[in-house]
Amino acid sequence: MKVLVIDIGGTHVKVASSDHLVPLKIVSGPTLTAGQMASQVLELVADWQFDAITIGFPGPVVNDRPSAEPHNLGHGWVDFDYKKTFPKPVRFLNDAAMQALGGYTGRKMLFLGTGTGLGSALIDDGHIIPLELAHLPYKKNRTYEDYIGLVGLERRGKRRWRRSVTDIVDRLRAAFVADSVLLGGGNAKLMKQLPKATVLGANSNAISGGIALWHQEVRREPVSPAVKGAEKRHVSPAKKRSGKKK
Amino acid sequence: MKVLVIDIGGTHVKVASSDHLVPLKIVSGPTLTAGQMASQVLELVADWQFDAITIGFPGPVVNDRPSAEPHNLGHGWVDFDYKKTFPKPVRFLNDAAMQALGGYTGRKMLFLGTGTGLGSALIDDGHIIPLELAHLPYKKNRTYEDYIGLVGLERRGKRRWRRSVTDIVDRLRAAFVADSVLLGGGNAKLMKQLPKATVLGANSNAISGGIALWHQEVRREPVSPAVKGAEKRHVSPAKKRSGKKK
Repeated sequence: MKVLVIDIGGTHVKVASSDHLVPLKIVSGPTLTAGQMASQVLELVADWQFDAITIGFPGPVVNDRPSAEPHNLGHGWVDFDYKKTFPKPVRFLNDAAMQALGGYTGRKMLFLGTGTGLGSALIDDGHIIPLELAHLPYKKNRTYEDYIGLVGLERRGKRRWRRSVTDIVDRLRAAFVADSVLLGGGNAKLMKQLPKATVLGANSNAISGGIALWHQEVRREPVSPAVKGAEKRHVSPAKKRSGKKK
Repeated sequence: MKVLVIDIGGTHVKVASSDHLVPLKIVSGPTLTAGQMASQVLELVADWQFDAITIGFPGPVVNDRPSAEPHNLGHGWVDFDYKKTFPKPVRFLNDAAMQALGGYTGRKMLFLGTGTGLGSALIDDGHIIPLELAHLPYKKNRTYEDYIGLVGLERRGKRRWRRSVTDIVDRLRAAFVADSVLLGGGNAKLMKQLPKATVLGANSNAISGGIALWHQEVRREPVSPAVKGAEKRHVSPAKKRSGKKK
């Protein structure tokens, strides 16, 4: 199966595919609408062959669609008719989750992407969980992103930024009981020494992830939630037995 | 399928089953070994019928076994031969994850258990992810557990404790992009008003979760990680095309 990958960012939209792994770029920006993106991408790939499409989206994705308008782009992303506009089936993935999937090496892996902001996602046994850890508190009323996003790098300098990256990676790896951390994003390469159990992300991760999405079995069927009736049975005849407590 | 559930805590071991939903209690404590637990439980349930066993364990679980000794119990929990000692197949689950599963209502649910400490777990589409959020930083060099565990309740009083629970639940629900929060643990009932999208846990959740574990399909097979070779192909003929950037 050949996949077209559209990685939507605040400054560029990157377009690649199973045949064209090095992305071409379209200029993005705060006025770009979903319709403009679609027509520019379709013109660019007019003679490409693909069977499916992955769109990496800089915002929350629910049921393979954007669930909120992106912060740094134009409007109309939630309601756009992607199915009608694109000639092949389309799946959306949060952009951090797409990079995480592209660098996934197995078991439980936390992805942290330090670029302008701080992207995050967890993959556990192939199950992808997009996260929004950037704005959790860290120190002195500032967030993780304030410390290791671009603003933190510029405010505190490379040396202290590196120390904070190591500290935050260590803490979050423990909190997620993760086997490994994939450290990606534009600034990850500034690290001289990687934190424990950490692998440096590659630029190609986003494209690989977009392709990989169609090659994995996606698990969507919910399990039967907790045994029904347990709560009720709890109070009737069984109650007598609670007197027997040792 | 009838399940025996053994919920191991620092002060009591609770023993229940599909037939005996109200748990019996065995005294636990800092010297309790895995062997003592097993022989006391087996004596207690000598005339019970069950086909499988779930053990809720107060510590990290990897591949259905404890992966580290518990903090508040005796030794020998990691290396004990559970398979040989128990007459039916045994699965382990972290205790917070077991409670989470017992109260799981679907989609993406974050569990937070405020008792002595702060337990945590995430369930997404039936996929259980044990977490250790308690010791992440929150405010003034103190952790989430320092604020909303028992120490925080005693230090700051109920009114301020409630305010912190609401704030922390809101922040973590956003960070995990969770549809709902299950607030459990011994002190959750002290809340007067629940935070947004939050459900109060029930005492029976741990037992229901231990039973439910054997009624769900456990997903363990890893997906094929990112497309192999993408990284390599990235540099050769495709590279020429990068000149075409728009």
